[in-house]
Amino acid sequence: MADKRTEISELGEFGLIRRIKSNFSIKNASTVLGIDDDAAVIEAGDKYLLVSTDMLLEGVHFDLAFTPLKHLGYKAVAVNVSDIAAMNGYPKQLTVSIGVSNRFSVEAVDALYDGIKMACEAYEVDLVGGDTTASVSGLVISVTILGEVDKDKLVKRNSAKKKEIICVTGDLGAAYMGLQVLEREKQVFLENPDMQPQLENYSIIVGRQLKPEARMDIIHELKDKGIVPTSMIDISDGLASDLFHICNQSGVGATLYEDKLPIDEQTYQTAGSFKIDPVTCVMNGGEDYELLFTIKQEDFEKLKNHPDIHFIGYIQVQDKGINLVTKAENVVPLQAQGWDHFHKS
Amino acid sequence: MADKRTEISELGEFGLIRRIKSNFSIKNASTVLGIDDDAAVIEAGDKYLLVSTDMLLEGVHFDLAFTPLKHLGYKAVAVNVSDIAAMNGYPKQLTVSIGVSNRFSVEAVDALYDGIKMACEAYEVDLVGGDTTASVSGLVISVTILGEVDKDKLVKRNSAKKKEIICVTGDLGAAYMGLQVLEREKQVFLENPDMQPQLENYSIIVGRQLKPEARMDIIHELKDKGIVPTSMIDISDGLASDLFHICNQSGVGATLYEDKLPIDEQTYQTAGSFKIDPVTCVMNGGEDYELLFTIKQEDFEKLKNHPDIHFIGYIQVQDKGINLVTKAENVVPLQAQGWDHFHKS
Repeated sequence: MADKRTEISELGEFGLIRRIKSNFSIKNASTVLGIDDDAAVIEAGDKYLLVSTDMLLEGVHFDLAFTPLKHLGYKAVAVNVSDIAAMNGYPKQLTVSIGVSNRFSVEAVDALYDGIKMACEAYEVDLVGGDTTASVSGLVISVTILGEVDKDKLVKRNSAKKKEIICVTGDLGAAYMGLQVLEREKQVFLENPDMQPQLENYSIIVGRQLKPEARMDIIHELKDKGIVPTSMIDISDGLASDLFHICNQSGVGATLYEDKLPIDEQTYQTAGSFKIDPVTCVMNGGEDYELLFTIKQEDFEKLKNHPDIHFIGYIQVQDKGINLVTKAENVVPLQAQGWDHFHKS
Repeated sequence: MADKRTEISELGEFGLIRRIKSNFSIKNASTVLGIDDDAAVIEAGDKYLLVSTDMLLEGVHFDLAFTPLKHLGYKAVAVNVSDIAAMNGYPKQLTVSIGVSNRFSVEAVDALYDGIKMACEAYEVDLVGGDTTASVSGLVISVTILGEVDKDKLVKRNSAKKKEIICVTGDLGAAYMGLQVLEREKQVFLENPDMQPQLENYSIIVGRQLKPEARMDIIHELKDKGIVPTSMIDISDGLASDLFHICNQSGVGATLYEDKLPIDEQTYQTAGSFKIDPVTCVMNGGEDYELLFTIKQEDFEKLKNHPDIHFIGYIQVQDKGINLVTKAENVVPLQAQGWDHFHKS
C-alpha cells in the first residue's frame, strides 16, 4: 500500500473532494451543513452564518501578463461574495491571506488591496483579518467570506423539484471567451513585442473575465418580490457542471432549451471567429458567476418581465436525465465537463 | 508615483499589515473586532463568533524534506486552534484550502488529510469546507477557523494593566531548536545520502517543531477555575514579539525575569551545542504556540501550583519600557525581533 501512487488527475477535483469528504464527519451541534454546497451553514442565534472560501494561484487561476492587480483583488472578493449569494445570503466579513514573492513591490500589494477595498465597498463587506507571508513562487490569494441569511430564507442545492422552472441571470460564456481573447493577444505580444493588444472590440467579454460581479442585485430583488428560490448555485464551472450539482444533489433531471440560453452578442461573434460553438462556452466555459436557480411555477408571474432573469428550462424526474433541446429540436444528453484544473491536457 | 518601487522587506510583515489595515474601515454592525488580534470577533446571537486564518507555503513555512505530510496537516489545524485559544474561545469549524502540484499523489493528499482529521478530532472541530486546486509551484495550505466564546469571557490583547502578573504555559524555544536540528540533519543528508538522520536525542524539540499542540487544555482549566485572563496572545513569533503586541496594544510596559523563563532541558542542551543563547530561542524563536497571558494578582493563588503555568514577570506602566532582568540582575530592554518572513537575510 505504501508504494501505491494514484495520480490526482485520475480522480479530478470533484473526485478528490468526495474522497476527502467521505473521511470526515460533523460532530458539533452548531454545524448545520458542511462541504455539500456553495457555503457551509452554521448556527448563529436567530440567523444562519454562511462560510465559503476560495484560493487563487498565479499560473492556474490568473496570468499577471494580462491581469491588472486591482482587478484581481476585486475578482478575489467578488467570486466569494457570489458563493454567499448562491445561498440567498448577504456577505458581511472576509479574511484575505496573500503570499507574495520579492518580485512584488509594496505598490503592487497596494494595487491588489485597492481592488479588494473597492469590492468590499461595493458588496458592503468588512475585511476583518488575514495573513501576509512571503512566497518563494507565485502570488497566492486565499479569501474566506462570512455571510448571513434568515433561517427561513436559506437556499441549498439539494431542493429542486419536478416541474420547477430553471432560471439563470445575465448571460453566459462571456468570461470564457474573454479569456480566449486575452490569451491570444498574449501570444501575439510574446511573438512580436511591438504589437499592441487589440482589445477594443472585446471590452464586454474581457471585462467579464477580469472583473466579474457577484449578483447581489438579484438577491436583493428576489427578497423585495418575496421569492425564495427552491434551489440555487452560482455558475463558476459552466452551466452544465453546475446544473449537474443541483440535479444530482436534488435527485432530479432537467430539460434545457438551446434557444433560451442567454448569450451576449459579443460572446456569440467572438466564439464564431474562434470557431468555438457558443453553446460549449455556455455549458463548459465557467467563471460567469451568474446565478442558476429554480422557482416554483407560481412564482413565474412575478419574474417573467425581469430583464436580466432568463427561463431556460424545467426540472424533470431523475429518470429523464439532463438534456438540452437544440434549436433543431434534437434532445442531447448534457455532459458535466466543467473546468477542472487537475484535468490532464 | 507610478514608477516608485518600495520593497516589502523595507516595511516587514507587521508594517505591511498596518499599511493594509489603515486603508480599511469597519462598516457592518456585526463586526465587533477586525484585524487587531489573534482572531476577528463577530456578533452571533448570545455568543461571539471568532475567525482566524493562516496560510502555509512550502519553502517558507515548511520543508517537505523533513516534514511528514500527516504532521503538516495536524500542525496546520493546531496553529489555527491556537489563535482561537488566545481569545479564550473554543474552536468549532474550519475550512482547508490546498494547492497541490502533480508531483503529489492522491496518497500524499490522503496523508495530509489524515493529519487534519486527527487534529479535528483532538480539538473537536468540524471540517466544513475548502477549496482544492492544482498548483504550478509548491504545496499551499490555507486554513480558516471559526470558534465561539461567551461574550463576558472574550480576552483581547489590549487589556493588560499595571501590576498584573505575566504568565506563560509550557516551555519556550523548543520548536526553534527542533528546526535547527532538522535543518542540520538535512544538510548532512544532502552532503552524504548514506548518512541516517540522528534525531533520537532530539525527540522533544523535533516533536515541538513538527507537531505542535494548541493549549486548549489550559483554556478548559482556566474556565474550571473561574479565571478570565486580563489579556492573552499565543506565542507564534517569539516571546518578545508577542509580549510587545500585548504591551503596545494595552499601552503598558513589562518586566520579565530570565530565571523564570521556562526552558526544557533538551532545548537548553541543544542550544548550547549550537552555540545559541537559549534566551534568544525563547525571545525570538517562535512557533511555540504556548499561551502568554496576564492575570490579576488576586487570581495568583488559584494558579500558583499549576505544573504547566509559569509566572515570568509583571506589567508595568508604559514609561518603564519592556525589560528583561537577567540572572546577573542586569536590566536589558527587550527587542521585538520576531520571525519575519519578509526580512532580508
